[in-house]
Amino acid sequence: MSENLLDGFRSHEHWLREALREAELAAAGGEVPVGAVVVRDGQILGRGRNQVEQLQDATAHAEILALGAASDRAQSWRLDGATLYVTLEPCTMCAGALLLARIQTLVFGAVDPRAGAVVSCARLLQGNPYRHAVEVVGGILAPQCSELLQSFFQRRRRDG
Amino acid sequence: MSENLLDGFRSHEHWLREALREAELAAAGGEVPVGAVVVRDGQILGRGRNQVEQLQDATAHAEILALGAASDRAQSWRLDGATLYVTLEPCTMCAGALLLARIQTLVFGAVDPRAGAVVSCARLLQGNPYRHAVEVVGGILAPQCSELLQSFFQRRRRDG
Repeated sequence: MSENLLDGFRSHEHWLREALREAELAAAGGEVPVGAVVVRDGQILGRGRNQVEQLQDATAHAEILALGAASDRAQSWRLDGATLYVTLEPCTMCAGALLLARIQTLVFGAVDPRAGAVVSCARLLQGNPYRHAVEVVGGILAPQCSELLQSFFQRRRRDG
Repeated sequence: MSENLLDGFRSHEHWLREALREAELAAAGGEVPVGAVVVRDGQILGRGRNQVEQLQDATAHAEILALGAASDRAQSWRLDGATLYVTLEPCTMCAGALLLARIQTLVFGAVDPRAGAVVSCARLLQGNPYRHAVEVVGGILAPQCSELLQSFFQRRRRDG
């Protein structure tokens, strides 16, 4: 593996750790622990964590809130050149949202065999209606990302 | 056509006219004219119109804003039994959102050959990962809904 590629992965891990922090905050709030950050030019433009229960809004996924925060900061709905880091493979809604926001790169942690719409249940970023190419990197810090989800659901089953 | 079916169509037209009003407000604000309402038990739970430019948020589609408003009103992210009326066939993001919100019925006006994800470019509500069945009714007031869009884009090309 070349030095550049290694640097790339280290950088991906760095930002995905920030997304993991958001996921931990979600878990602490009793939400399914998924977190996201939008990064451009080496800085975080927006953060988001799953807040479906807290906001009682089915669309309050980590990615949607991170995209909203990033657009606020950038004062533009066009996030060209930005990378979205998220701990879990995006669902149908979120895959569509990152196409609309013109996200350049998607980096996710764990796959979602139940509802993932990027590599698992569907591949909605490929051959999408917007003809907008999104580079996809999956599996970064996957064990940590899925462990957080697994222990959340185990706890919920135990306490439920 | 039975009386019941006729009543159903008249009722769909009634609510879709409310969505059209929202679309007209969007047009007046310089937005691509798409409007939506969420209806349950014979009343409007939430309204939304495309506000991508005004809010500078790529996710600010009519459907997403109507779902958010309806969830606020219902104080729940679960909109079981509700119908979403929208003037244009939903995109990938919005199709995913109405699955997440457990919308029972989708009624739309015009098809969207460019990015529609219900019957045109994809059929994301069929065989979806959530195994949530959504009844789909398309083509209600389609000429009015598409005319509004066409004249908007004609005006924009002329003035642009």
